[in-house]
Amino acid sequence: LPAIVTLTTDFGLRDPYVAQMKAVILGIARDVHLVDITHDVAPHDIAEGALALEAAVPYFPPGTIHVAVVDPGVGTARRGLAVTWRGSVFVGPDNGLFTPFLGQRPGEGAVFELAAAEFRCFPVSRTFHGRDLFAPAAAHVARGVDAGRLGPTVDDPVRLAWPEAQEMEGLVSGTVLHIDRFGNLITSIRAATVEAMRTDLVVEVGDRILRLVGTYGDLVGGEAGALIGSGGRLEIAVRDGRADAGLGAARGTPVRVSPSSPRFRTSL
Amino acid sequence: LPAIVTLTTDFGLRDPYVAQMKAVILGIARDVHLVDITHDVAPHDIAEGALALEAAVPYFPPGTIHVAVVDPGVGTARRGLAVTWRGSVFVGPDNGLFTPFLGQRPGEGAVFELAAAEFRCFPVSRTFHGRDLFAPAAAHVARGVDAGRLGPTVDDPVRLAWPEAQEMEGLVSGTVLHIDRFGNLITSIRAATVEAMRTDLVVEVGDRILRLVGTYGDLVGGEAGALIGSGGRLEIAVRDGRADAGLGAARGTPVRVSPSSPRFRTSL
Amino acid sequence: LPAIVTLTTDFGLRDPYVAQMKAVILGIARDVHLVDITHDVAPHDIAEGALALEAAVPYFPPGTIHVAVVDPGVGTARRGLAVTWRGSVFVGPDNGLFTPFLGQRPGEGAVFELAAAEFRCFPVSRTFHGRDLFAPAAAHVARGVDAGRLGPTVDDPVRLAWPEAQEMEGLVSGTVLHIDRFGNLITSIRAATVEAMRTDLVVEVGDRILRLVGTYGDLVGGEAGALIGSGGRLEIAVRDGRADAGLGAARGTPVRVSPSSPRFRTSL
Repeated sequence: LPAIVTLTTDFGLRDPYVAQMKAVILGIARDVHLVDITHDVAPHDIAEGALALEAAVPYFPPGTIHVAVVDPGVGTARRGLAVTWRGSVFVGPDNGLFTPFLGQRPGEGAVFELAAAEFRCFPVSRTFHGRDLFAPAAAHVARGVDAGRLGPTVDDPVRLAWPEAQEMEGLVSGTVLHIDRFGNLITSIRAATVEAMRTDLVVEVGDRILRLVGTYGDLVGGEAGALIGSGGRLEIAVRDGRADAGLGAARGTPVRVSPSSPRFRTSL
Repeated sequence: LPAIVTLTTDFGLRDPYVAQMKAVILGIARDVHLVDITHDVAPHDIAEGALALEAAVPYFPPGTIHVAVVDPGVGTARRGLAVTWRGSVFVGPDNGLFTPFLGQRPGEGAVFELAAAEFRCFPVSRTFHGRDLFAPAAAHVARGVDAGRLGPTVDDPVRLAWPEAQEMEGLVSGTVLHIDRFGNLITSIRAATVEAMRTDLVVEVGDRILRLVGTYGDLVGGEAGALIGSGGRLEIAVRDGRADAGLGAARGTPVRVSPSSPRFRTSL
Repeated sequence: LPAIVTLTTDFGLRDPYVAQMKAVILGIARDVHLVDITHDVAPHDIAEGALALEAAVPYFPPGTIHVAVVDPGVGTARRGLAVTWRGSVFVGPDNGLFTPFLGQRPGEGAVFELAAAEFRCFPVSRTFHGRDLFAPAAAHVARGVDAGRLGPTVDDPVRLAWPEAQEMEGLVSGTVLHIDRFGNLITSIRAATVEAMRTDLVVEVGDRILRLVGTYGDLVGGEAGALIGSGGRLEIAVRDGRADAGLGAARGTPVRVSPSSPRFRTSL
């Protein structure tokens, strides 16, 4: 079976940078499936890139290789990494982009520095490691090279402070992490957290109190509501409208989940 | 030969939704060609999605599988469908998106409800059937599963009121259906209708009378004109300019074709 | 090994034109890798298309087939071409789009007119040769048809006046050719020209004098500087910012490289 190699960058699709990476990959490993996750990560926004990977990666089959390049530090001393995770391999810069996949426990995954010269393209430019370092490393892994051959083990990969919701006194507080094309607000509050609350809930965004529904169609036209989105996170949506505009919300806007019982309402 | 699976959505390419669908398809059927038709259908605009399919589908080889997701009713009672058409198969929501391919005559095609649990991903989210229902069904068809195994026959699929031009007293009246990247106006008037008029013709848009030419290059710089476009429809173009801006036209703007003989001009 | 067929157009990805081309290619040659270089060339901007090809093509393996369509003259008398270059083949309009690959010396490459009817789709529309003429020709080449069978040799392909930097009295003068997604200015001054100057250099853009650095990370936040970009051209960048906005630069803005020694400063 052909290996799957995904690409995630902040390069956009207007410039030929993504095509250069694909050219390098196909020059080394022709029998692959190339799949774009997204190339519209906001320029240099490492957290947004990490969120895109977190959302998409679990749906790919084991053995998939993920190249990701959101890399403001290209050409400086920051390392290049290969990260193993549940049978898949990530290749890219050591700047926190792979935070969701860096194991918390020993043995959960391994991290290697891209040090071996034989898996690079020469000369390695100082401004485009995606093409000269990460794409060739990924292509060699796609051909069967073990990630451990790419270089020495790394014990201290850079990790982002990953935004997780906080639970306190029966309330869950989080923030808006991302706004999608439809204007839906994707939050830092995970489905499992909401499900564990085991009572009727309401969701607060700004000064609005919203009900929790099962799907967009449970809302009436123009109504704002909260639901468990397809990515396993609490989302805020407006039916036939945009939640970002309708609620005046942006990335970072606080979101709170609480029991719908009135005694909690005083906490507003 | 690898099967071809196309994708048409209103998801855009910034969010990872399309990648999730491709991941699911490749997890089930690895030996496929994935081809994007468009992911920039205006959000929830079913008619625009149907037009994109109508324009692109006839160029694909028989046996192609088309997954399409413009799905404002996701999670409600609306059905999922598989539609067969001239050796190809469509998979997506039952909301009119496949109107151009729903046969008018018995035996012209078959429609099945996506009811069989074995061709889904579990759990099926209530907000993303593209990933959990349509992508896996399409992948199974790509692997050779007959569409009829996906569920029971549907006799009453939802159909859009499909915009067709009207002929009356030697005139043909239609509307602008779509404006493309170049500002060209794609109309509801089909090439065959124009060709059947068998006389010299003019085309009216708003208060402008335009001549019918063979290609963009037959116009002089800045001139507006009408021509039979590559999709088999009457189009309005401005050479080295945009017809939408130049003519003040938008989707829905009326367009009329009439003989160029002066006695018809009084009808303006 | 499957052949690689790339696509470069000004069609955008919202309309189904690119998908129609891919459909035609896959109908003729199924065992290919389709790679998008870019579809966001500014409409009808042949020079921008040529620059995208120049940047991307050298990274593809020999034998790659490049279809490119930026074609304001479609349907007029302009010819269709196949161009051979270092083992690769280009297919598209004869309007200068392949200027970087038209050999300067005898034997460096060959150019053929797309005249043979057997390698077209019928009917050939007068408005979309990308689909009806170029895509099928490329697909037949991908299946092994020699480019020379597509039609007679062309001795006088259209060439753009290609923007090259000028050297004079120890100074190099060029212009901004392209502004990328990050706001970086890509210039007409090539790496080899800069390296041949063999002294400390400064770069002038408008009334600003910038230092030449190795990579973005050598600049401090907000600082503008020049560097040899990944495409082998002098680029101007602003760290954590956009050079186009920061320097008031646009396509066509003059750029000059000179020794940093003070006696050259009087030339400003």
